[in-house]
Amino acid sequence: MTEGAPVTTRGRGARGGRGGPRGPYAKSAERRSAIVEAAFEVFTAHGYQGGSLQRVADVVGMSQTSLLHYFPSKSDLLLEVLRRRDQMSSGEFVRGAGVQLAGDVERQARYNEGVPGLIGLYTVLSGEAVTEGNPGRAYVTERLAVLRRDYAADFRALAEVGRLREGVDPDRAAAGLVGLWDGVQLQWLLAPDEVDVPRLLRDYLDLVILPAATGDGAEPAPPSA
Amino acid sequence: MTEGAPVTTRGRGARGGRGGPRGPYAKSAERRSAIVEAAFEVFTAHGYQGGSLQRVADVVGMSQTSLLHYFPSKSDLLLEVLRRRDQMSSGEFVRGAGVQLAGDVERQARYNEGVPGLIGLYTVLSGEAVTEGNPGRAYVTERLAVLRRDYAADFRALAEVGRLREGVDPDRAAAGLVGLWDGVQLQWLLAPDEVDVPRLLRDYLDLVILPAATGDGAEPAPPSA
Repeated sequence: MTEGAPVTTRGRGARGGRGGPRGPYAKSAERRSAIVEAAFEVFTAHGYQGGSLQRVADVVGMSQTSLLHYFPSKSDLLLEVLRRRDQMSSGEFVRGAGVQLAGDVERQARYNEGVPGLIGLYTVLSGEAVTEGNPGRAYVTERLAVLRRDYAADFRALAEVGRLREGVDPDRAAAGLVGLWDGVQLQWLLAPDEVDVPRLLRDYLDLVILPAATGDGAEPAPPSA
Repeated sequence: MTEGAPVTTRGRGARGGRGGPRGPYAKSAERRSAIVEAAFEVFTAHGYQGGSLQRVADVVGMSQTSLLHYFPSKSDLLLEVLRRRDQMSSGEFVRGAGVQLAGDVERQARYNEGVPGLIGLYTVLSGEAVTEGNPGRAYVTERLAVLRRDYAADFRALAEVGRLREGVDPDRAAAGLVGLWDGVQLQWLLAPDEVDVPRLLRDYLDLVILPAATGDGAEPAPPSA
């Protein structure tokens, strides 16, 4: 639901971790996890369209035939990589009520600076998603729609407490926030010293959100500005 | 320099058109142009990393060996496609003085709605550019830097006539405008009925640019709002 905020290292799998199943199933889950991990690396470096199953198989040290036993097609593997990305992105940050939007966004954006590989992967895959027949298309389309809907709800909550600037439309402001985030992340990946993503998002939110009345505690200052 | 505003049809080549050279060179230029045209189509459909030289050769009806006579490598071809895109994007719109920024942006954005293929191509290629060693990386990095610089100059011009909202930084507003444009175009390509790019850009510019004093003519209303 967020733009990305991985919890720990990329080594932690969706299945087969501590507390998971034991025995043959655990072993199989471990392999599955290793394949997704390898695919994550390959797609990050080459994109989905440029990354081959053979390369993924090479990274994980198995034959392509064995790999296809776990994931019948490349697009199955892509969708698992995207789900993994979502798992990594959730959990670290608890979204507050809608009125805490600016602080939530800035914290997530600062965190994202530490995981350029993950942001890069998402940037490549979401760009590729606009091509005809791309298997990630439905996923990315849905994800962007969910983000728009959630941020629109946040802006509406702000409007209810009188903190949305007059004339700002919550739905369009939400699409704008999502688009700004994606677009400036692209610039940051290519010119990290010139583009400060959290600051640019804060600039935008400062334009559309009015300051909280002093002392109401609805919008605490971010930990580091 | 703009986000895209092709002049005419995609059939018009960089070389070999009317008024160009005659004889063997013209013939060669025609083939070159046909190859770039085919590459444009293939990269639009499959991305650069997913589109193969063989597929380009198939579209243009020549062997891959013959194609390599014109373009020694796939990355040479990519750069020619990107230059072609810039040619298509220039000429239609004459940029006004910096203070006409909002009108210029909105006109370009409305024009772009008619050429989703071109916008899609740019979206895919700019996403792929963040991958290691991508041959389009330098091009996209430079293009984004030039856009930031040009729009920053526009915002500074607006500041000079007292039309930039207080507290808005021209450089960051420029990065924000470029990012917003790229990001909302991605959303529009995937959900054209839900996302209105020109309107979202106008919303943003309405937040950072103050209205012109009535009658000074600096910022005429856009042709269609």
